[in-house]
Amino acid sequence: MPHSREQLLDIDAWWRATNYLSVGQIYLMDNPLVQRKLEAEDIKPRLLGHWGTTPGLNLIWAHLNRLIRERDVDAIVLAGPGHGGPAAVANAWLEGTYTEVYHRVGQDLEGMRRLFRQFSFPGGIPSHVAPETPGSIHEGGELGYVLSHAYGAVLDNPDLVAVAVVGDGEFETGPLATSWHCNKFVDPVNDGAVLPVLHLNGYKIANPTVPARIPREELEALLVGYGHEVFTVEGDDPLDVHRQMAEAMDAAHDRIAEIQRAAREDGDLVRRPWPMILLVTPKGWTGPAVVDGKQVEGTWRAHQVPLAGTRDNVEHRAQLEEWLKSYRPEELFEEDGRPVERLQALAPDGDRRTSANPHANGGLLRRPLELPPFASAAVEVKAPGASMHEPTRVLGHYLREVMRHNADRFRIFGPDETASNRLDAVYEVTDKVFAGEILDSDEHLAPHGRVMEMLSEHTCQGWLEGYLLTGRHGLFSCYEAFIHIVDSMFNQHAKWLKTTNEIEWRARIASLNYLLTSHVWRQDHNGFSHQDPGFIDHVVNKKSEVVRIYLPPDANTLLSVAEHCLASTQYVNVIVAGKQPSYDWLDAEQADLHCARGLGIWDWASTGGDDPDVVLACAGDVPTLEAVAAAGLLREHLPEVSVRFVNVVDLMRLQDERDHPHGLSGREFDAVFTADKPVIFAYHGYPWLIHRLTYHRTNHSNFHVRGYLEEGTTTTPFDMVMMNNLDRFHLVMDVIDRVEGLGQRAAGVRQLMMDTRRRARAWTREHGEDLPEVSGWQWSPTSPTSP
Amino acid sequence: MPHSREQLLDIDAWWRATNYLSVGQIYLMDNPLVQRKLEAEDIKPRLLGHWGTTPGLNLIWAHLNRLIRERDVDAIVLAGPGHGGPAAVANAWLEGTYTEVYHRVGQDLEGMRRLFRQFSFPGGIPSHVAPETPGSIHEGGELGYVLSHAYGAVLDNPDLVAVAVVGDGEFETGPLATSWHCNKFVDPVNDGAVLPVLHLNGYKIANPTVPARIPREELEALLVGYGHEVFTVEGDDPLDVHRQMAEAMDAAHDRIAEIQRAAREDGDLVRRPWPMILLVTPKGWTGPAVVDGKQVEGTWRAHQVPLAGTRDNVEHRAQLEEWLKSYRPEELFEEDGRPVERLQALAPDGDRRTSANPHANGGLLRRPLELPPFASAAVEVKAPGASMHEPTRVLGHYLREVMRHNADRFRIFGPDETASNRLDAVYEVTDKVFAGEILDSDEHLAPHGRVMEMLSEHTCQGWLEGYLLTGRHGLFSCYEAFIHIVDSMFNQHAKWLKTTNEIEWRARIASLNYLLTSHVWRQDHNGFSHQDPGFIDHVVNKKSEVVRIYLPPDANTLLSVAEHCLASTQYVNVIVAGKQPSYDWLDAEQADLHCARGLGIWDWASTGGDDPDVVLACAGDVPTLEAVAAAGLLREHLPEVSVRFVNVVDLMRLQDERDHPHGLSGREFDAVFTADKPVIFAYHGYPWLIHRLTYHRTNHSNFHVRGYLEEGTTTTPFDMVMMNNLDRFHLVMDVIDRVEGLGQRAAGVRQLMMDTRRRARAWTREHGEDLPEVSGWQWSPTSPTSP
Repeated sequence: MPHSREQLLDIDAWWRATNYLSVGQIYLMDNPLVQRKLEAEDIKPRLLGHWGTTPGLNLIWAHLNRLIRERDVDAIVLAGPGHGGPAAVANAWLEGTYTEVYHRVGQDLEGMRRLFRQFSFPGGIPSHVAPETPGSIHEGGELGYVLSHAYGAVLDNPDLVAVAVVGDGEFETGPLATSWHCNKFVDPVNDGAVLPVLHLNGYKIANPTVPARIPREELEALLVGYGHEVFTVEGDDPLDVHRQMAEAMDAAHDRIAEIQRAAREDGDLVRRPWPMILLVTPKGWTGPAVVDGKQVEGTWRAHQVPLAGTRDNVEHRAQLEEWLKSYRPEELFEEDGRPVERLQALAPDGDRRTSANPHANGGLLRRPLELPPFASAAVEVKAPGASMHEPTRVLGHYLREVMRHNADRFRIFGPDETASNRLDAVYEVTDKVFAGEILDSDEHLAPHGRVMEMLSEHTCQGWLEGYLLTGRHGLFSCYEAFIHIVDSMFNQHAKWLKTTNEIEWRARIASLNYLLTSHVWRQDHNGFSHQDPGFIDHVVNKKSEVVRIYLPPDANTLLSVAEHCLASTQYVNVIVAGKQPSYDWLDAEQADLHCARGLGIWDWASTGGDDPDVVLACAGDVPTLEAVAAAGLLREHLPEVSVRFVNVVDLMRLQDERDHPHGLSGREFDAVFTADKPVIFAYHGYPWLIHRLTYHRTNHSNFHVRGYLEEGTTTTPFDMVMMNNLDRFHLVMDVIDRVEGLGQRAAGVRQLMMDTRRRARAWTREHGEDLPEVSGWQWSPTSPTSP
Repeated sequence: MPHSREQLLDIDAWWRATNYLSVGQIYLMDNPLVQRKLEAEDIKPRLLGHWGTTPGLNLIWAHLNRLIRERDVDAIVLAGPGHGGPAAVANAWLEGTYTEVYHRVGQDLEGMRRLFRQFSFPGGIPSHVAPETPGSIHEGGELGYVLSHAYGAVLDNPDLVAVAVVGDGEFETGPLATSWHCNKFVDPVNDGAVLPVLHLNGYKIANPTVPARIPREELEALLVGYGHEVFTVEGDDPLDVHRQMAEAMDAAHDRIAEIQRAAREDGDLVRRPWPMILLVTPKGWTGPAVVDGKQVEGTWRAHQVPLAGTRDNVEHRAQLEEWLKSYRPEELFEEDGRPVERLQALAPDGDRRTSANPHANGGLLRRPLELPPFASAAVEVKAPGASMHEPTRVLGHYLREVMRHNADRFRIFGPDETASNRLDAVYEVTDKVFAGEILDSDEHLAPHGRVMEMLSEHTCQGWLEGYLLTGRHGLFSCYEAFIHIVDSMFNQHAKWLKTTNEIEWRARIASLNYLLTSHVWRQDHNGFSHQDPGFIDHVVNKKSEVVRIYLPPDANTLLSVAEHCLASTQYVNVIVAGKQPSYDWLDAEQADLHCARGLGIWDWASTGGDDPDVVLACAGDVPTLEAVAAAGLLREHLPEVSVRFVNVVDLMRLQDERDHPHGLSGREFDAVFTADKPVIFAYHGYPWLIHRLTYHRTNHSNFHVRGYLEEGTTTTPFDMVMMNNLDRFHLVMDVIDRVEGLGQRAAGVRQLMMDTRRRARAWTREHGEDLPEVSGWQWSPTSPTSP
């Protein structure tokens, strides 16, 4: 159905209005409708913003609004070129949402003045699309994640269309490049659709973009290879582009509807090419063509602020005035600043406005998970160390139940490691979703499923973020070392959470839960390249109110922590837990109590009373094993040394209560770690973190921490702890070195420990496996007994 | 030219031999040629390794060797599926290189026994391709970087062919996905060629791969879209595959030769599709087809160790014996373990062996940079703070000269930010290399060039690593916040350096130099999402002997540091420096001395003598400005407080000499920071790092650090430091709070500081720019004078 000229002129009016409002934001402090000649004082002293991508974004919104109104589409927009913040804000204001959310920015002249002034202004709003922007779930900071975010948003949202604008700069990033393949993980029955719009405006900050400078047929082959049908819109004549774009929007939406109908009504699940739009328009389109004799429009020079000297340079200011007036604001706004009625009628209604769509404020739609009590999956523990389990396998059983009870709002994400990480019990109730070809020999692979595996940590993280931001719940399971691949994505999400905490209208979303397993101490297969416990250090640099770190020492504590994290909101929870068989220390009830406290004294492993000679502390599963074994050695060989055994699950408990909401008070901390006794601390990661967390504590100068010293290779588990001086023998030596007043016998025990280390090492080198007596914790018959 | 059956049988013999040697490595401790029945004791107790990808890698080597011998090709191999370590080791051993490098692993029966035993064995070698592997510049740990490494290797190596094997698992990662576009940055005249081999064996650890499960024409469209001509080799009949592969290798090499000839002889620089090979063979090919009734060959079950129970399970052991014998070892090895002569004749000669190619031990080829003295680019400094420069712009002038003098071995890499980071003086002597379409309107873009810009930090890092590992030099300039994108790549490179330090035959390579600019304090345009100084924290977790961190406070110190870093080897150097106009503090001579010391007292900013009341320390350009201004305020308002001013350039100087090679001794440290006086430390990044680095110091409990508190937005420079309590007024308040015995007047000064902060903030909120008197350091006429 061809679009009438009237319709196209309507779209053009919306586009001109949002372009005007965008330029106004970048430049003006006052005189928003240029009702008098622009003066220096009307111009902001610091011009900060990005014009280049903005008219393209406004064009997309103008056309999408038409589609939404005509077809009652439930749609959101994710602006990959999110540095085009003025566009998102302009559209939200024109749709009325901005004023609903920020009352002081009204749809009138004073409101428009405030709208312009606040942009990229101290005390105002960021220059990018940001948490502050209504309708946004996608921060415009770091590039690369717009498609994975969009796909995360449409999972389990069968009626949602996420329009994902991909800039041709972002196109060059790695995470974006692989995220085109997300269309192999969409279930057309239960999921919604992503409509990518690749906006080829040709330039980045200082260079042309790669996709703009390869032959068009090569680019099209690439996009077809990514699994898309391409609808191209290209030009620089507004009405011609409007006509093409309106047709492309209709055609793309028809195609989405047909794929979904075929799948939903005919059961036809063969993957078809999903539509996408290739939009080719000049960078900085409708902005100043030439400035100071240099071509600006259509080049990289339009990237940020095309007229830099507007405040002081009279010619630039005149050019700005001409530019603003080229949009014919008098046709678009009443003299009192209100958008004219014709424009108001072009905005979709209520929640259908992309700026007001509740999916983009997902906390509004969030329904808490129905969580079975973790104890239902707990393992029986008759005595500490009397049995062994693979903690993540036990967790798998719990997650299976979570999955069963929340089949519409919980997913697990991971880079091909769900089974390797031993969570495969979930496959009893669901499958891995895959829209590529499935063979009879494949296992747990299906067109529908709630486990998402692609060998791209970036994509997993992006999916999960998109899923959470639209009000759902999930877990990302990953090898510990390779979670660093998404360090920067974590940064952005943590910043998003921190900022949304300060925004009243943003509803709380579910926490982002990481399960880091296949950790540093058990990379028997892979060695040094797979050993890095530093993600924890990375995480603690972010605001304490949004990060939590847990190191459950066994299966039941892992369950307890997992239940707690899955119920929480607005955090990033990092859980580090092993997948290898390891000893059970606590039964369900003890685990519950221990995890609620976050840290505690384990009496059964201690020999001291209220006044110990030394505190033996630990955090992490492998350090806990070594510390328990060390306590056993001490009990056997130096029974006169009284040892207090402390285990830490919630690492943030170590911090001062003033530094972290989970922090212990000084009094509580001293009650556990003493005010003056040596503390030997066996820690999972790089040892300095413990010093950092305990820096303000009374007794901090007595803390002596063992952890990962960046030594490793493919070797046995016990050899790994020995290489890093975290082994039981070394811990005993540390105790002997630190406790004062021990006599000659202690020196003999120290020697024995050293000799045993040497023997253990030699045995391993010869036999290729651990000395039998160090493969467990029952190093001797006189080891600690049950509580 | 068709290949004779004899030739194909030769290739097959090499392939069988390397397959045999691979299986032997995974399983055997003894009885390497199975000259007696396999017993339990012959089998390793822990079976760790990856068989699935190995036969494919061996196939590629077998065919490449034929090509190398026939055509005298200078080639190296980068094994993307580097978990197939046994293949790389097997080929190196069969080529004789392994024995040349590791004498105890001879080409005889005992050598073969050792070769097998050491693999993935305590005290032995890693299971992946690793620094220990001759011929490798590509660690087989983290996936995604094989193409960018390969492209980095061939830059300025016009005769080199880098065969880059891309696994179909790695194919799914983001960094790999975009790195296909590297072919738009190859200069066919001055650079060599990369021959990608996409090995489609269909499966990852637990899943099919995406490229294996999309229609073949879709995959081919994708690869054509990436700019390649595809030669497909597919099958599971060895001789048939050998015939196809030999033809594909010839054809691909012909195509490379033709592209290079046309460019070099005819000056034809139009980008043509570069050849690549699509190799489709079964996962775990030639391994056990079925184990315990389940299909293994050709499925994900072949990924690691197909016969898991070989030591205890007699049937598995028999199956292993049959498997080993299927390669007919008696045709391949003499009874004394030597490869038969027919095989020996198949290895290329000397340095042409990929395992012995000096490009893969790049330190051998490294020629130090010819570095002009930094003083030649230094700016004149008449007095501290008397002039201003943009430090990175000044550095650009120096880098231009470095470029001029080292036109064959120095490149700059960056994600579209070289000009934004103000290094554009380099364009006076070179261009940005680009093989896409170039328009008349483009600037500094050319088919030849030494600046490489792609909007992919991953690709920039990968290129630079490949370039360094093959013996050249470079610099990566990046926005500070987004260097986290390559956190994990940095990890792998730091681990590589640490390990190569321990390997005698590895020659030292040039340091990897990061210039982090557009840093946290000056993200005026972009705000919170672009603010993260945490890369430093990430870096210090790696081995102290391979990491260095520099925070030059001004232009001349930046030059001095840069010269030092460019001359160094085997480090990762992180330089953090601003691009905005900032004060010059030191002239060239002073900068030289200050940087050589790494930290020092600035007398001209101090008021104290040998016994100050307080130490005001700083590290980083913005903190230095605030600290200087604070010193001025103190001098004006509280002249009775004697202040020692300390600036730190080399952050590692803060550490104890036992913790870091650059560390100061305790005595030296105390001489600067005192043993008991309060130290107010203004630091560029997250404040805890300073505590970490000074933890062992006598005076550490008196350190009071200000830094980035994860607060920020798009605002003015001074508002940013105020938001994080790093501003001059707050530093003065900190001094007042810490120095004992100050009287009522000090309380008044404190109040004045608080009032001034309030005034500064209100001014900024109203005017959109900083209070005029805080835009510099000359806060008052009585500020510190020149030395």
